[in-house]
Amino acid sequence: MAEHHILLMDGPDHKGLIYQVTRILFEHNQNVIRNDEYVSPSGYFFMRTAFSGDVVVADLLQILKKELPEGLNLRINPNKKKDIVVMVTKEHHCLGDLLIRYAFDELDANILAVVSNYNILQPLVSKFGIPFHYITHENRTREEHEEAILRTLDVYRPEFLVLAKYMRIITPTFVDQFPNRIVNIHHSFLPAFIGANPYRQAYERGVKIIGATAHFVNNHLDEGPIIAQDVKSVDHRQTASDMATLGKETEKSVLSKALKLVFNDRVFIHQNRTIIL
Amino acid sequence: MAEHHILLMDGPDHKGLIYQVTRILFEHNQNVIRNDEYVSPSGYFFMRTAFSGDVVVADLLQILKKELPEGLNLRINPNKKKDIVVMVTKEHHCLGDLLIRYAFDELDANILAVVSNYNILQPLVSKFGIPFHYITHENRTREEHEEAILRTLDVYRPEFLVLAKYMRIITPTFVDQFPNRIVNIHHSFLPAFIGANPYRQAYERGVKIIGATAHFVNNHLDEGPIIAQDVKSVDHRQTASDMATLGKETEKSVLSKALKLVFNDRVFIHQNRTIIL
Amino acid sequence: MAEHHILLMDGPDHKGLIYQVTRILFEHNQNVIRNDEYVSPSGYFFMRTAFSGDVVVADLLQILKKELPEGLNLRINPNKKKDIVVMVTKEHHCLGDLLIRYAFDELDANILAVVSNYNILQPLVSKFGIPFHYITHENRTREEHEEAILRTLDVYRPEFLVLAKYMRIITPTFVDQFPNRIVNIHHSFLPAFIGANPYRQAYERGVKIIGATAHFVNNHLDEGPIIAQDVKSVDHRQTASDMATLGKETEKSVLSKALKLVFNDRVFIHQNRTIIL
Amino acid sequence: MAEHHILLMDGPDHKGLIYQVTRILFEHNQNVIRNDEYVSPSGYFFMRTAFSGDVVVADLLQILKKELPEGLNLRINPNKKKDIVVMVTKEHHCLGDLLIRYAFDELDANILAVVSNYNILQPLVSKFGIPFHYITHENRTREEHEEAILRTLDVYRPEFLVLAKYMRIITPTFVDQFPNRIVNIHHSFLPAFIGANPYRQAYERGVKIIGATAHFVNNHLDEGPIIAQDVKSVDHRQTASDMATLGKETEKSVLSKALKLVFNDRVFIHQNRTIIL
Repeated sequence: MAEHHILLMDGPDHKGLIYQVTRILFEHNQNVIRNDEYVSPSGYFFMRTAFSGDVVVADLLQILKKELPEGLNLRINPNKKKDIVVMVTKEHHCLGDLLIRYAFDELDANILAVVSNYNILQPLVSKFGIPFHYITHENRTREEHEEAILRTLDVYRPEFLVLAKYMRIITPTFVDQFPNRIVNIHHSFLPAFIGANPYRQAYERGVKIIGATAHFVNNHLDEGPIIAQDVKSVDHRQTASDMATLGKETEKSVLSKALKLVFNDRVFIHQNRTIIL
Repeated sequence: MAEHHILLMDGPDHKGLIYQVTRILFEHNQNVIRNDEYVSPSGYFFMRTAFSGDVVVADLLQILKKELPEGLNLRINPNKKKDIVVMVTKEHHCLGDLLIRYAFDELDANILAVVSNYNILQPLVSKFGIPFHYITHENRTREEHEEAILRTLDVYRPEFLVLAKYMRIITPTFVDQFPNRIVNIHHSFLPAFIGANPYRQAYERGVKIIGATAHFVNNHLDEGPIIAQDVKSVDHRQTASDMATLGKETEKSVLSKALKLVFNDRVFIHQNRTIIL
Repeated sequence: MAEHHILLMDGPDHKGLIYQVTRILFEHNQNVIRNDEYVSPSGYFFMRTAFSGDVVVADLLQILKKELPEGLNLRINPNKKKDIVVMVTKEHHCLGDLLIRYAFDELDANILAVVSNYNILQPLVSKFGIPFHYITHENRTREEHEEAILRTLDVYRPEFLVLAKYMRIITPTFVDQFPNRIVNIHHSFLPAFIGANPYRQAYERGVKIIGATAHFVNNHLDEGPIIAQDVKSVDHRQTASDMATLGKETEKSVLSKALKLVFNDRVFIHQNRTIIL
Repeated sequence: MAEHHILLMDGPDHKGLIYQVTRILFEHNQNVIRNDEYVSPSGYFFMRTAFSGDVVVADLLQILKKELPEGLNLRINPNKKKDIVVMVTKEHHCLGDLLIRYAFDELDANILAVVSNYNILQPLVSKFGIPFHYITHENRTREEHEEAILRTLDVYRPEFLVLAKYMRIITPTFVDQFPNRIVNIHHSFLPAFIGANPYRQAYERGVKIIGATAHFVNNHLDEGPIIAQDVKSVDHRQTASDMATLGKETEKSVLSKALKLVFNDRVFIHQNRTIIL
């Protein structure tokens, strides 16, 4: 993470946008380290510019907003680790992977806490000295449960929530608190096999390839923008249970790959699709 | 294709089945070249045994049927190329690949003829000296069209029909003429994106991986047993049209892989899944 | 190939290069359709800019050269198909694939002729109405053979030579005639298994993955810049001959992928590596 | 691991071998759960038979040895976890993965201890309550260092040694103590890029794919039988350091996959190749 600032910009395309932005950075003695842009077929512009140099970020942002056409979204992110909270249920494979990476400073994020509706993974989390909040959903309505979680999250104020096999449906009310800031790993190669027991479904359909999908969460279950996907080959010898085991490997690596992209400010969202620069 | 005979056997599992079969072959001086078997979790047995030796196949089959438990399906296939007819519409990528392989004797099948509801691919087929039957669907009901095709197929009596991008729905009546003998290449990673314009659907859903599926055709459209699947990675830069181009590459290689398995008698069908030995 | 012009630029990085180029294009009413750039860790700059608009290309190039820092390589390519000659020996798999693509206008290149040191593939090439030059290496020294080929190539003046399984070593003298303009498909996952019979080597080493490599040819055999690579999984059941069959599939698709990149002006070469924008 | 016993058998092929083995198991009331066999092109036979039933294993083995042709290697393994010691140097990625799996009983092995020539990974290992032996190589000859390690291993008597990024060359004397019982993860797609800093080599060669190899260790460094390999795509934007990061992911998953095969008695070794049944 050697880049000093990340300018993120998206909006309707205008002739000369790259020119205007690079001119302004040039005139303010900023050194462009890496520049990636994309214009969609429908004429929507995306740009991620990593740059370094002495500058008051707020002032530069002001100048950019003034000199560039209206209607553009502009942000300048500092080059620092994101603060996150991880939510889990009972499965350890994704969480274990995140904890090991975090312990060796490879996650590009600070895990502020782990929240779970079971206490099964508490011993694992404790090994790494991270707060674990066991918030059961038993004897609580869905709303009460989510409120309890939100009260806990309020203490940590995470930039991103990572659902690392959190197996509860979350409500639009909850999602609205973290717009485009919740990343989920889905136990399937979306859009196939939505719903319960996808590996059983995959087995019964006799597929030759299974996969996993990391995506942002929006109000439509399993339908948020896809960040990363990967697959593994299977054959008839694999039972539904074998497929589940193999699927976990894929979930682990796909989530890790997606988080790296998100935490490095490389993911734009537009019309329910991701643009990754 | 150096194996002399292929014994194919499936049915409810019994203790000692492998022993009984290998004993009978041993006692009749047959040399087992390769033996593959599989027992499903529900107790269904599959075995493919390649063997060589002087033997009257019909007699051997009789003996096997007599000495083995009842209720088993038993076949002994000669080790020879399958006779096939290829059906296409307008797209050339799968057909072109099959023709080149056939021209250089790599297909493990004889292409007896190509049937199409358009005459677009006639020039290509003619280069390879194979009969091309243009049977338009215009001014014909679906039934009339299929009957015309069936009359043509009747001349060739193919063992397998290969739908190499044949873009017409076929009726149960037609399918019934070729039970488990029609192989289709589907322009999607089944079970996702069934229906028209799958690459447009894939683009709009923003998937990061697209694929293709080769499967047997049964009476439920797109739901026959899957033989082979493969995928390719895509990103936001690919338009629906780019995805279609890339998808064709996948279709071509997946169909080719599936046909090799089918033509070498390696594919069993059971409960709408394939067992590939 | 809807882009009208492709500006290709590489050289030592300077602050503001993107800004200067986009400014000049903007001032001359050119519309940037797609812009990709890369700066290597050692500070070397690469940019590919697709743009459209009414312009006299030679004049624009003059202006760019005048206004940009010295030491940059600058080209503006028209958006047209490349002229190529394909060289082969006895194997048909790559050639067959190129011919089918060419026949259906999918190659982004014109195949002017096919040259071979055997006449085995003449019947295939003839089906497609393309000149076939059989230039045997028998009773000729290597130099005499290459001179004969060069005389033939001189008639066609191809922009690129494609070695689609041309199994003769070519000399530096020959290579020098086509600097960075010869693309070869190598029957191995370079840098492993250089030399004769790579699939036998792979089999004996018991590898679990085999691959193929498309690369530019330079004076060091098998060591030119790599354009594309791909692999397939194998296991102990595959003989060296099976691996060769599977390897051909990979060769075919890797060569096709590499040529698409080259013919679309997307490949830069720098310090024996390719930069693909 | 529901199978009760695993019969492993290899040797020169004889007509009727499968028949003889299945007959003997049948006559002794053993139920064959899964049977896999392979005959190499050179006529060497391999078979792995999982079976269950009440039996005195030593007696059954005696009978098999008596009734089957001479010259066969025969073992019957109980269906139990292997005892292993893991050896590491400084890198945590493979070890971390093994520890998480072990903690959740997914490794099919007991980690008796971790041995390292550095103490860097001691804190990680301690979290999981496993003995960590720091045995420095400093101020010791290679022989003295290995003797110190062997004395430690002698206490644990592991069935397998897992080199999970142990970065010291081990001598033939050491290897001889664990014939075909040491599994190493190699930071390269063997046989390419043998030696130091493979990712730097890969970067400089400009490869488009990198990989990792898990193999048994024999006396020729990096040349033991390959168990598993996998690859990931890279492009010019990846620095040697990025490639190393990506390579670690591959190392982690390849080692895990190979160990699962080894610990489940699925790997035979013959003429420096593995046969995986």
